[in-house]
Amino acid sequence: MTARISDAHDLAGDPAALLAASPVAAELRAELERRWPAGTDHIGEVSRYALLAPGKMLRPVMLVAAAEAVGGDRAAVLPAAVAIEYLHVASLVHDDIIDGDELRRGRASVPVRFGVPDAIVTGDALILSLFAALTECGLPAEPVLAAVRAVADAGVDLCRGQALEAELLRDPACPPERYRRMAALKTGALFRAACRSGAVLGGGDTEQVAAATRFADRVGTAFQMHDDLLPYLAETEVTGKSGSSDAGNMRPTFPVIVAHGMAGARDRALLAEALSGHRSPVESFALLREVLTRLGAVERAAAEAAEEIRRAHRDLAVLPGGDGARLLAAVADLAIHRDR
Amino acid sequence: MTARISDAHDLAGDPAALLAASPVAAELRAELERRWPAGTDHIGEVSRYALLAPGKMLRPVMLVAAAEAVGGDRAAVLPAAVAIEYLHVASLVHDDIIDGDELRRGRASVPVRFGVPDAIVTGDALILSLFAALTECGLPAEPVLAAVRAVADAGVDLCRGQALEAELLRDPACPPERYRRMAALKTGALFRAACRSGAVLGGGDTEQVAAATRFADRVGTAFQMHDDLLPYLAETEVTGKSGSSDAGNMRPTFPVIVAHGMAGARDRALLAEALSGHRSPVESFALLREVLTRLGAVERAAAEAAEEIRRAHRDLAVLPGGDGARLLAAVADLAIHRDR
Repeated sequence: MTARISDAHDLAGDPAALLAASPVAAELRAELERRWPAGTDHIGEVSRYALLAPGKMLRPVMLVAAAEAVGGDRAAVLPAAVAIEYLHVASLVHDDIIDGDELRRGRASVPVRFGVPDAIVTGDALILSLFAALTECGLPAEPVLAAVRAVADAGVDLCRGQALEAELLRDPACPPERYRRMAALKTGALFRAACRSGAVLGGGDTEQVAAATRFADRVGTAFQMHDDLLPYLAETEVTGKSGSSDAGNMRPTFPVIVAHGMAGARDRALLAEALSGHRSPVESFALLREVLTRLGAVERAAAEAAEEIRRAHRDLAVLPGGDGARLLAAVADLAIHRDR
Repeated sequence: MTARISDAHDLAGDPAALLAASPVAAELRAELERRWPAGTDHIGEVSRYALLAPGKMLRPVMLVAAAEAVGGDRAAVLPAAVAIEYLHVASLVHDDIIDGDELRRGRASVPVRFGVPDAIVTGDALILSLFAALTECGLPAEPVLAAVRAVADAGVDLCRGQALEAELLRDPACPPERYRRMAALKTGALFRAACRSGAVLGGGDTEQVAAATRFADRVGTAFQMHDDLLPYLAETEVTGKSGSSDAGNMRPTFPVIVAHGMAGARDRALLAEALSGHRSPVESFALLREVLTRLGAVERAAAEAAEEIRRAHRDLAVLPGGDGARLLAAVADLAIHRDR
């Protein structure tokens, strides 16, 4: 038997355990299996490969939790949760083309396994399918149409955020506010799509929907900040690699931007040198790590991410509470307490 | 002053003139200009470049015409017409990556002008924006949500059709039914999205919506058949090039499939040789042209496309008629009477 959310009260304090104990991820996986059986057509096969790779299902779980947090019905919003996972996976499939990433969730990425043309078309099919799935929510047309709007707007934000991120390359002097805007657009988008549409579909009032949206923005921003911090928080080969990858891509990550704000002229020159593309990715990352550690920028960046999550918890106070709100709180904590 | 549809009665018989006299295309272009002003952000610039290239606006005109043909209001469905153009343009932008096409509508294609990453992200943003635009129709939520479903389903069909087309490569023995399925999925999809959502948004009853959908399927199929015929119908360098391009891509086009059905063993071997990739595109196309002309396959294929359009006209008889239906009839005729 799968544990029920209500069994999880004594798990409070361990967000990963609370999330794992939620039956929502398992229900979602079963729903994906049902919707994408093996042996249909080629797009079906590629979609199945992309969707059924092991993932945390964080965003669809948030959608269901947001709906339940305002008194909504889980079964009615399950198609919307599936839709959010489609958008997330479509963005990963297209990202893997753009970034040339060969691995995703421990397996060959879709463009590597099936080629770029199939990766483009399958990503498109997933984006289109998500809107078909949204129409299957067992709810009146008005909230469903509002959810269509929320997801579409957030999806466009995601695209704009990706473009904005590309503009920030090589620039450690990027103002923190610009970084936050990029993170809220790019990483916040899917959290926002999940929480906003969940609250709308769950029947939340205007104030509750606005609170769920703010909560998602803050969690998304903190999530991206923490992602950027990961290479500096651990010593493993894996995260070292991702740090070199960021540096190799000349991406000014959050702790680098924080360090720039704290640094004198000499350290600023070193940060610029590390992002210039003149050194190897491994050398660049080593240089960044040296400067950031010396300045205490990692701790300061981590404190900013934690402050973002504290604010997110305050947004949750507007919601009626219950299991859904507890699950949202766990996701918020997890955003800055994960090692990958 | 732009001519009104009602001025165009005496233009009947000249579908291109009827279409040109319709104010809908100009209204749509003005709406696109309004929605995509210059100087926003990068995604905005790329979208503007892709959307405002000179095009016939065939599909959005069909959406408005289908809505008017069942008594709907043009202003209320204009956002949906814009949405259909987004879907069309997004599919062109992503197609140009897949096919490596450098020219589109007489200018550099989006991937050539802005690079593949921007082309991927802009196509995605257009697909997502189209659903946001759909929610702006000034109509009750129920028909708008039905239109969301119609457009999403047709969009998925478009993706499935592209994958099916890839499976048909190199095979002149492709059964005509398989070709028709591919054409209805791939090319029919956007016509179907336009006519079905137009009829739904215009307030059409079940029978009218079904007739508009069948009409669109037939026009789409005939449109693809005629596209495949174009290289064999003219002697210009341009269409010769597109014929060589099809042959170079080893794509079995409609007249080739028809020829295969009429041919004996020796001619079948020649058709297979032409699609084998062993000869240059120009040689392959010359060989196909020789065999097809000798067998009379071009005439037979053209007759089948014309029969498809005759059936499309019969579907229109279910609609109340008026300017909208007249415009749909003109588009149907144009599908098989255009030289590009």
